[in-house]
Amino acid sequence: MPVAFDLSAWMIHQLAAVEHALDTWVSVDASPETGHHAPAELMAAMRYAVLDGGKRLRPLLVLAAFEAVSGGSDGASNPVALRAACAVELIHAYSLVHDDMPCMDNDVLRRGKPTVHVEFGVANALLAGDALQVLAFELLTPDVGVVSASQQAQLCRLLSRAAGCAGMAGGQAIDLASVGLTLSEAQLRQMHRLKTGALLQACVVMGATCGNANTAATAALKDYGAAVGLAFQVVDDVLDVIADSETLGKTAGKDAHNEKPTYVSLMGLERARAYACELQAQAMDALTRSGLGDVRALESLAAMVIQRTC
Amino acid sequence: MPVAFDLSAWMIHQLAAVEHALDTWVSVDASPETGHHAPAELMAAMRYAVLDGGKRLRPLLVLAAFEAVSGGSDGASNPVALRAACAVELIHAYSLVHDDMPCMDNDVLRRGKPTVHVEFGVANALLAGDALQVLAFELLTPDVGVVSASQQAQLCRLLSRAAGCAGMAGGQAIDLASVGLTLSEAQLRQMHRLKTGALLQACVVMGATCGNANTAATAALKDYGAAVGLAFQVVDDVLDVIADSETLGKTAGKDAHNEKPTYVSLMGLERARAYACELQAQAMDALTRSGLGDVRALESLAAMVIQRTC
Repeated sequence: MPVAFDLSAWMIHQLAAVEHALDTWVSVDASPETGHHAPAELMAAMRYAVLDGGKRLRPLLVLAAFEAVSGGSDGASNPVALRAACAVELIHAYSLVHDDMPCMDNDVLRRGKPTVHVEFGVANALLAGDALQVLAFELLTPDVGVVSASQQAQLCRLLSRAAGCAGMAGGQAIDLASVGLTLSEAQLRQMHRLKTGALLQACVVMGATCGNANTAATAALKDYGAAVGLAFQVVDDVLDVIADSETLGKTAGKDAHNEKPTYVSLMGLERARAYACELQAQAMDALTRSGLGDVRALESLAAMVIQRTC
Repeated sequence: MPVAFDLSAWMIHQLAAVEHALDTWVSVDASPETGHHAPAELMAAMRYAVLDGGKRLRPLLVLAAFEAVSGGSDGASNPVALRAACAVELIHAYSLVHDDMPCMDNDVLRRGKPTVHVEFGVANALLAGDALQVLAFELLTPDVGVVSASQQAQLCRLLSRAAGCAGMAGGQAIDLASVGLTLSEAQLRQMHRLKTGALLQACVVMGATCGNANTAATAALKDYGAAVGLAFQVVDDVLDVIADSETLGKTAGKDAHNEKPTYVSLMGLERARAYACELQAQAMDALTRSGLGDVRALESLAAMVIQRTC
């Protein structure tokens, strides 16, 4: 009989490596090879945006996918997977910094702390976001030989597409343009596929790439990533309605306040919850199809995303 | 006796290829492989920022460096060099969009047209800049086999370092922090090395990488790039004082207005001009040292940068 998977212990182990790596890589000495140092004030804003907060779901997905395809290797100890995990988190962090700015959501609270533009000023928030985005690509392309050129190229390709105009940035633009509009379910789904789904899906595919997964496994993991990515947004919409700001660590009820279309406004609360469960089943099916041996971390992460209450 | 180099004819030929490539690559179908399209409104802002304007100095430097190291190949016809040239231009374009925003320079005129945030709103300008930055990395990492994995990785490495917190974004942060301050010449030079120099230098090194240059030639071209990059900024400061807005295509005198330290405020007009000439001599020396055969395009571009009157 298989031993029950201890998600909590697994997460603690992986997160220690991720936090340490982010602390090391988001630093004044980020690019020692160029002979130039990042200015301290910019780096302070970047570190504030990235360190000491965040659930690190995206890095965990990268590492779990890497472990699933590489048969028991430890993600936290793999330098390629760890770089990919941190690169995705930098993209996520930059998107939050820019999304919170006055010209976007104008939000003052994030992870229970003042947002970057409140703490460092709007101009520094803009620059810190810009610098975090490009630092992700620096992390993926180190001089030293631990990451092969082929993996560097593939990872940059996957990440740039997921973050770009036909991915996350495109989704943000659709979101911005749909304030006050009524969207169909298909339109809402398309918006979220780009806005949050593309990057979450890229996490899984990047993790698979770090472990040199075969085509069939990569395709199944892509489906898993799509289902989890969409479920994440459905649950986020549910939480925005039912949780308070203190539990959430960010301003609650802001979607309704901002007249943004959500799964709850479209489907109602109960149907939105049922839809999240359906997506979880789709994610599990995809894992079964993957043909991979140990997918328990990926299974548990999907369950955590979908069953979280805050 | 060698035939005189016709810079103008060379530029017309190269620019036609660059404009066509940008028009093709900055489009709704930018990422057909993902099955997703960029939203039309975001793409409109991105195209407005990139197309139909700009001197394209950076792409020209990439193509000239490629031609110098690859002994007579046509840069405009080389798919690797053309991608690198356009990628650098996208980084430049994004930096202008964000730099013009109200929280930064709050500029309303660029290349003789309303700035992106004036035309499309501040939130769309933010997103368009974000999307242009990451599109640069998409251009460098195509699926198809024209760019080797090794070149993709090297080009992403060079570009991300040049644009990042120890490069362009870092320089912007220093610039922002030094408004109203008196900088020493060393501090001003360091600011501009990061803010504009790093990317201009990267152009030349990326072009050399596209042509698989040897180490000695690359090192010499790096020195050329550093001198031209610094000279560019010195001349920019001179022009900000002596030209009017109509000739310049952007708001003139804005550095003094914004209390920004410049080479003119530090050295005075005549010494700043002399310094630009000295840097031109350094650039020419570096080309001689490079051991490359035909460096006439690089020579002519340096002369154009430094002797331009507008």
